[in-house]
Amino acid sequence: MHPRTLHWDSEALVLIDQTRLPLAVEEIRCTDVAAVVDAIKRLAVRGAPAIGVAGAYGVALGALRGGREAVPAALKDLAASRPTAVNLFWALDRMRSVHEAGGDAAALVAEAVRIHADDAARCRRIGEHGEALMPETGNIITHCNAGALATAGMGTALAPIYLASERGKRLHIFVDETRPLLQGARITAWELAQAGVPATLITDNMAGAVMKRKGVRAVIVGADRIAANGDVANKIGTYPLAIVARHHGVPFYVAAPLSTIDPGTPHGDAIPIEERSEVEVTEGMGRRTAPHGMAVFNPAFDVTPHELVTALVTDRGIFPATADGVCAALATPDPGPPPAGAGA
Amino acid sequence: MHPRTLHWDSEALVLIDQTRLPLAVEEIRCTDVAAVVDAIKRLAVRGAPAIGVAGAYGVALGALRGGREAVPAALKDLAASRPTAVNLFWALDRMRSVHEAGGDAAALVAEAVRIHADDAARCRRIGEHGEALMPETGNIITHCNAGALATAGMGTALAPIYLASERGKRLHIFVDETRPLLQGARITAWELAQAGVPATLITDNMAGAVMKRKGVRAVIVGADRIAANGDVANKIGTYPLAIVARHHGVPFYVAAPLSTIDPGTPHGDAIPIEERSEVEVTEGMGRRTAPHGMAVFNPAFDVTPHELVTALVTDRGIFPATADGVCAALATPDPGPPPAGAGA
Repeated sequence: MHPRTLHWDSEALVLIDQTRLPLAVEEIRCTDVAAVVDAIKRLAVRGAPAIGVAGAYGVALGALRGGREAVPAALKDLAASRPTAVNLFWALDRMRSVHEAGGDAAALVAEAVRIHADDAARCRRIGEHGEALMPETGNIITHCNAGALATAGMGTALAPIYLASERGKRLHIFVDETRPLLQGARITAWELAQAGVPATLITDNMAGAVMKRKGVRAVIVGADRIAANGDVANKIGTYPLAIVARHHGVPFYVAAPLSTIDPGTPHGDAIPIEERSEVEVTEGMGRRTAPHGMAVFNPAFDVTPHELVTALVTDRGIFPATADGVCAALATPDPGPPPAGAGA
Repeated sequence: MHPRTLHWDSEALVLIDQTRLPLAVEEIRCTDVAAVVDAIKRLAVRGAPAIGVAGAYGVALGALRGGREAVPAALKDLAASRPTAVNLFWALDRMRSVHEAGGDAAALVAEAVRIHADDAARCRRIGEHGEALMPETGNIITHCNAGALATAGMGTALAPIYLASERGKRLHIFVDETRPLLQGARITAWELAQAGVPATLITDNMAGAVMKRKGVRAVIVGADRIAANGDVANKIGTYPLAIVARHHGVPFYVAAPLSTIDPGTPHGDAIPIEERSEVEVTEGMGRRTAPHGMAVFNPAFDVTPHELVTALVTDRGIFPATADGVCAALATPDPGPPPAGAGA
């Protein structure tokens, strides 16, 4: 139902070119390492889980084209493609282990397929747990893109929406455009349309009017990092959305795989917040719309304190956004690898 | 200190061309009625008070160029330039009365100057009352443009900021860009820079992070209509900003002339909310950023319930945003016309 961000096809990695969305849907066929590195570097594939899976297939392509001796260079080039994406290093480490254990190209392809299936299975588990929280009918608000296109599966925040819609629930999604980079307008709007889920685009500052005038049953968003006390760092605009949801008595859910929880971060104030280029604000949509020389504050994320989060929806189940809830999530055993072939 | 939206100079109306802001500052010299009509139609001058003053000078130009017999056509053409701007009709009615009482071109110029001075004086009174609410130092947030460029004076919401800054208070303004039409980024950012008031541009969804991380002493915005119970209709995004301000214990002020109060509207739910073209959201900054066929909800205004408004700052004084406060404001006598020459 949801778009297929990437797939393995006849010894090639096929990716949707996300730089061309939403106006053109083009696939890129990567048959060697350089093509995968290029796709990651220029954001044709984005979203930490999706980048990790693409990197794993990149290593397999290295072995397929150049044999075992090509693998170390492939690992090195892919690791340098997007130096801050933690999932990428995690996936490359898995590939390196298979290589160092003597695995050939076929073994590396098999491991990449497992990494892919693992991500897809994690998304589906988030979806299954979260689906139970979705109403039979009504409006849902989401922010940014925590969908299929950020993962190799059905997404995180959008997974419960996809499953609920498949099962006949009549949901309608209000999509925050998500300034400054418009991930909502460009990516979430597109993937919901592809999946046939009814959706309406709004500017971020319209969520209050939507809750008041249209009625909203839930807000569901993803997370970039969850602290040990349940505080959530996510795309800028998440925090005011949570405040407005609380003001209207609307449940506010955060959907993320367990790997998003960072037990080493005690609370949200300890999460470093990246500040990005002012050009994203002053020229965000292709032409300059602010005076030259204007000062800009452009934090990429904000922190939503756990008190405003109704529940954390993870691949291990639903937990309260509290220190106890986070502990319980971390203590819940992984259900193990998915059945062979799932999600690939 | 603030930019001069329009002024009368040697038998011509000189206007800042607001369609060229913020990247170019060009003045238009209107020497006949047609030039004023054109400037109003293509939004070179905008903001209801500013349009009213421009229209009055347009009638005077008609008489200067074509004598008394040209005035009826000038009134008709100017009335058709922007059919929904109430202040325009109010100003044209004042000019018609002078004409019908036998006034010549000089009398019409004098009346236009009085209308101009009257608007400037109203802005200054709002500024004087609101200045007392401004702290000695600290951050203020504003939304949209309720500044000099919307009026023929120092603005409404920005008037207290201009006066406080003139008097040595060290204010720093966070300017909401104000999607979809970016009046904050394009116009407020520009006029604050012109006035030398320190300011930083943010996207609307950053106000929560700014209040939490930077500390904000007050939010001050304008109003499009104030209901009899104190509910306020203003540019979309005002309502969630008020909720977020309340969450942080930040005072939320609404600055507007008394004429913005509509005693015939009992409460905010009775205020009709214009919904505008989806293109403002999908192509708001010059190129399409959403999928074709995407549904869009684009209300131009939202309603902030009076409970979230700390006070109404008017040209008659500061009043609580309650039915009693609105009654008291309406019962306060107009201090009368400003001294001759003020503001013109």
